[in-house]
Amino acid sequence: MENLAKERITALRTLLKKEGIDFYIVPTADYHNSEYVGDYFKVRSFLSGFTGSAGTLIVSENEAGLWTDGRYFVQAQAQLEGSGIVLYKMEEEGVPTILEYLEKNVKEGQTVGFDGSVVDAAFGRKLEKQFLLSYDKDVADAIWRDRPPIPATKVWVVSDRICGMSVSQKLALVREKLDAEGAGHLILSKLDDIMWLYNIRANDVEHNPVALSYTFISKESAVLFIQKEALTEETRQYFSDNHILVKEYSELTQYLEHCEIKGTIWYSGEDINYLLYKLIEKRGALTDQENPTTLLKAVKTPAELEQIRNYYLQDSAVLTKFLFWMKNNVGREPMDEFLAAKKLDAMRAEIEGFLDLSFETISAYQKNAAMAHYSASEETASKIASEGLYLVDSGGQYTGATTDVTRTIALGSITDEMKLHFTKVACAMLRLAETKFLYGCTGRNLDIMAREPLWQCGLDYKHGTGHGIGYILNVHEGPHSLRWKYKPNRKETVFEEGMIISDEPGMYVADSHGIRTENILEVVKEQKNGYGQFMGFRHLTYVPIDLDAIDTKYMEASDIEKLNAYHKAVYEKLSPYFEGAQLEQLKQATRAI
Amino acid sequence: MENLAKERITALRTLLKKEGIDFYIVPTADYHNSEYVGDYFKVRSFLSGFTGSAGTLIVSENEAGLWTDGRYFVQAQAQLEGSGIVLYKMEEEGVPTILEYLEKNVKEGQTVGFDGSVVDAAFGRKLEKQFLLSYDKDVADAIWRDRPPIPATKVWVVSDRICGMSVSQKLALVREKLDAEGAGHLILSKLDDIMWLYNIRANDVEHNPVALSYTFISKESAVLFIQKEALTEETRQYFSDNHILVKEYSELTQYLEHCEIKGTIWYSGEDINYLLYKLIEKRGALTDQENPTTLLKAVKTPAELEQIRNYYLQDSAVLTKFLFWMKNNVGREPMDEFLAAKKLDAMRAEIEGFLDLSFETISAYQKNAAMAHYSASEETASKIASEGLYLVDSGGQYTGATTDVTRTIALGSITDEMKLHFTKVACAMLRLAETKFLYGCTGRNLDIMAREPLWQCGLDYKHGTGHGIGYILNVHEGPHSLRWKYKPNRKETVFEEGMIISDEPGMYVADSHGIRTENILEVVKEQKNGYGQFMGFRHLTYVPIDLDAIDTKYMEASDIEKLNAYHKAVYEKLSPYFEGAQLEQLKQATRAI
Repeated sequence: MENLAKERITALRTLLKKEGIDFYIVPTADYHNSEYVGDYFKVRSFLSGFTGSAGTLIVSENEAGLWTDGRYFVQAQAQLEGSGIVLYKMEEEGVPTILEYLEKNVKEGQTVGFDGSVVDAAFGRKLEKQFLLSYDKDVADAIWRDRPPIPATKVWVVSDRICGMSVSQKLALVREKLDAEGAGHLILSKLDDIMWLYNIRANDVEHNPVALSYTFISKESAVLFIQKEALTEETRQYFSDNHILVKEYSELTQYLEHCEIKGTIWYSGEDINYLLYKLIEKRGALTDQENPTTLLKAVKTPAELEQIRNYYLQDSAVLTKFLFWMKNNVGREPMDEFLAAKKLDAMRAEIEGFLDLSFETISAYQKNAAMAHYSASEETASKIASEGLYLVDSGGQYTGATTDVTRTIALGSITDEMKLHFTKVACAMLRLAETKFLYGCTGRNLDIMAREPLWQCGLDYKHGTGHGIGYILNVHEGPHSLRWKYKPNRKETVFEEGMIISDEPGMYVADSHGIRTENILEVVKEQKNGYGQFMGFRHLTYVPIDLDAIDTKYMEASDIEKLNAYHKAVYEKLSPYFEGAQLEQLKQATRAI
Repeated sequence: MENLAKERITALRTLLKKEGIDFYIVPTADYHNSEYVGDYFKVRSFLSGFTGSAGTLIVSENEAGLWTDGRYFVQAQAQLEGSGIVLYKMEEEGVPTILEYLEKNVKEGQTVGFDGSVVDAAFGRKLEKQFLLSYDKDVADAIWRDRPPIPATKVWVVSDRICGMSVSQKLALVREKLDAEGAGHLILSKLDDIMWLYNIRANDVEHNPVALSYTFISKESAVLFIQKEALTEETRQYFSDNHILVKEYSELTQYLEHCEIKGTIWYSGEDINYLLYKLIEKRGALTDQENPTTLLKAVKTPAELEQIRNYYLQDSAVLTKFLFWMKNNVGREPMDEFLAAKKLDAMRAEIEGFLDLSFETISAYQKNAAMAHYSASEETASKIASEGLYLVDSGGQYTGATTDVTRTIALGSITDEMKLHFTKVACAMLRLAETKFLYGCTGRNLDIMAREPLWQCGLDYKHGTGHGIGYILNVHEGPHSLRWKYKPNRKETVFEEGMIISDEPGMYVADSHGIRTENILEVVKEQKNGYGQFMGFRHLTYVPIDLDAIDTKYMEASDIEKLNAYHKAVYEKLSPYFEGAQLEQLKQATRAI
């Protein structure tokens, strides 16, 4: 059988020739630059065969290249085999960025093309400075015959009680920020920001409870652009009660061309698409800045935190029971990665208030876990035996939390190298969690607290240490994060009380094993004194760290203390959810070492 | 007696009224924005009475305010007493920056004045966007009757052998950078960059072996502007041999107005003064970027490193002997801070190749050490007794190194709090020194390795953790540093093999004690593997850390290991410089605990 990607890229090349496009960029985004996208928007995956959540394809007459990040190197290598597509491993030494690649290869007079509605304004503006552009057409659409429809799921309303803030309170805060910035309008296209602002949710992107929408906010008005199929009489009433004017999703363009503009328009160049940018550019002065909603949304309200703490406990208890079941039954009954994931998903679904998974469960045995975002299908799933390491990264959407947690467990004998890696990763996670820091620190200050135990051994993991998490929203949420690399002019976000963030160091050895230990942490205030306001973290996740994979010879005395203290807390928090033999097993799994 | 600062500020106000200036800014800088300046340039100190090395005075009709940083809060408070000048503690909560202060207080139509030749271009350009400016006059000059002359010391040449790179090699590197940037010219006004480029030194700023000078470099020519008094027949010949055209210092202005310009002029807005900027602004396109020389200079050559390692050892041996002398003799013979500094200075001067101190020795006993940059005069020096803590921060200029080192020692009984602070500071210094990190880290990633042991206890020090150091040049040298605070858009510098940096955490308790332990570290390459190039540090400083002030109950086992390993190395490195009873004392001072 001919390679499917090869065929599709050949078809695309024919179209590009017709359009006079020499280099065509296919990113992974929807009209809202979402990290995860609905099926309609999976053009890059359709063309290249690489199904990872992040990647950019560039097709020219002579080459097709795919850029993706460290989470996906192994998976992309496998999925691109035979496609003729060259894999560009982002951030590896000597690998050009997309911009560098274009700078090197695009010749005078050649045209760079892309669908301007799925490329963010910031990147489009970089491109327009250097190249002739063709951006008003989705060229690949013509060859995607059975393309799925644009999603339009029903919107539902989250009560003020569990959000802790009403729409009008949120709109007032946003308008305060507009005033402070001296801006007259705000255009929001970032879906989770819009959901947060209006206390609504939907299901337009798998596991991301958002509705395709835009909103345009002025001093006196708030207009929501959304597909009519998404609305019910009840939600229409809700919007009307809250003085939100609802218009059809597709009417945004026309509205922006004709609406009255007083003062500057605030937009976020990282979020709105390039076509939209070209439109508002014609309407007068612009302010390019992170959406005011992004930081507001990241600082959870006390009401949200109360829900979150409660759901994380229940979620932790379920994962712990699942891991106990695996440990107890592996080798005794048939098990594979896919079935294991299904079992965990079913257990999680029994929690009251469960809505959905927060992302597809990563259930990876032995060498498959070396792919940080491995996905096992029913057909390809590996059997799980009573040896080696098993990694499970999973989470749920609940009516009061979005959870995310990773544990790796030993299912029998493991090598000394695996023990070293597992132990160092556990120490890394706990050291970061126990860090105390002065207010003003960002993720770039703190990341090394997790990485240093690995760096000391000449080891590293090629992904960030942590990301923010939404509230009944996207499992990845900014603006804060835990990363160490310096990028000139990149905005950093100071940790604020009430933010939540993942703490997920790992170790990946291709063709051997993968380890990740991920807790979610809440940012809390510690003492305030003459030196300033001290800050720290509190665990939201309470799941044992597998002592069978720990070797204390790789730990400092203080690491052992931290692990014992964590396990003591795990036992205290989880024991109400356990009884009988399971309670005994919990006691054993959280014993002091 | 009327307060002298009060009188001078009153006199200044009269002049400002005449000139129509409402707010007058007096920074601490020379024409080259040097950190330390010659006496001629100490206008701020003359006017305010505050003698610290850093500070900005603003005088208006109704208020005079002085901005300085954490190193000088205590000293400034004391020296400003009775002057009527308000102290603004920079970076403290609620304290406005200079710009914020002006924004709040300057009214429509009012004029902000400063001497444009001592304000850097970057700051001047910020001011010109917001205020009416008067910048072409040094208003305070008229009231400074016995103002010292502009310094003009003799220039001397550093041999290629101990620099490891000739002038022509350096000029070639600079011209490569000009080409890469697409710039036609480079204007340098940063004195240590000019000294480095031409392999020359002088003595125009106390302890900073620089000559007041500018240079203008084009593809084919290099013109040095310098005072004729600074030159000898020999140095004239040297410049001529190296195809460096020498012109009088004051001729720069005229030259820049008339010289032929081909392509853009590269300048560093943080370094050149505002008047100079206004001049080149008229000559065409500009590129505002860090001088190419700044990074080149920071990465020491193998020849320089060889000299540095050797001199640091000798310097360490002398400091150790001094500290032993103090420990052995305190309480037995009269001692004060001033005399102790003199003794150390004299001991250092006996090292072959000694040229000068690298800064005025900070010799501070007990509560005086709480002022990070305390300076004891003959008259005000405190007596030193056989109890409490003594801090000495000092360094030398040698024909092959600039050194900088701080130790704090117990001279008898000390409190438990002092032991806690001393021990935590020692752990902090050693933990940073032992950090391993991936290439790409900057000071903002690593700073927390030193601060975390203190932050865990709710403690902090209000200064950076480290600074680069010159080679027979300024004791503070960029562009790299160890600081944690996030400043949007501030450039950071990645650590490169061959850079040297101080590692100097501290603890300061007003009216009680001050502790600082400072080693200088060399940045070295560690293993390179699939994860990247690992980096680390190697000590250049080998001076015992006083075990009398250490309490192991505040240390982790790994901290004790680190201290013992460091002391073992100190003994190995220093023992060749010791004999008899002193060698015994060294053995004792570096014993494993």
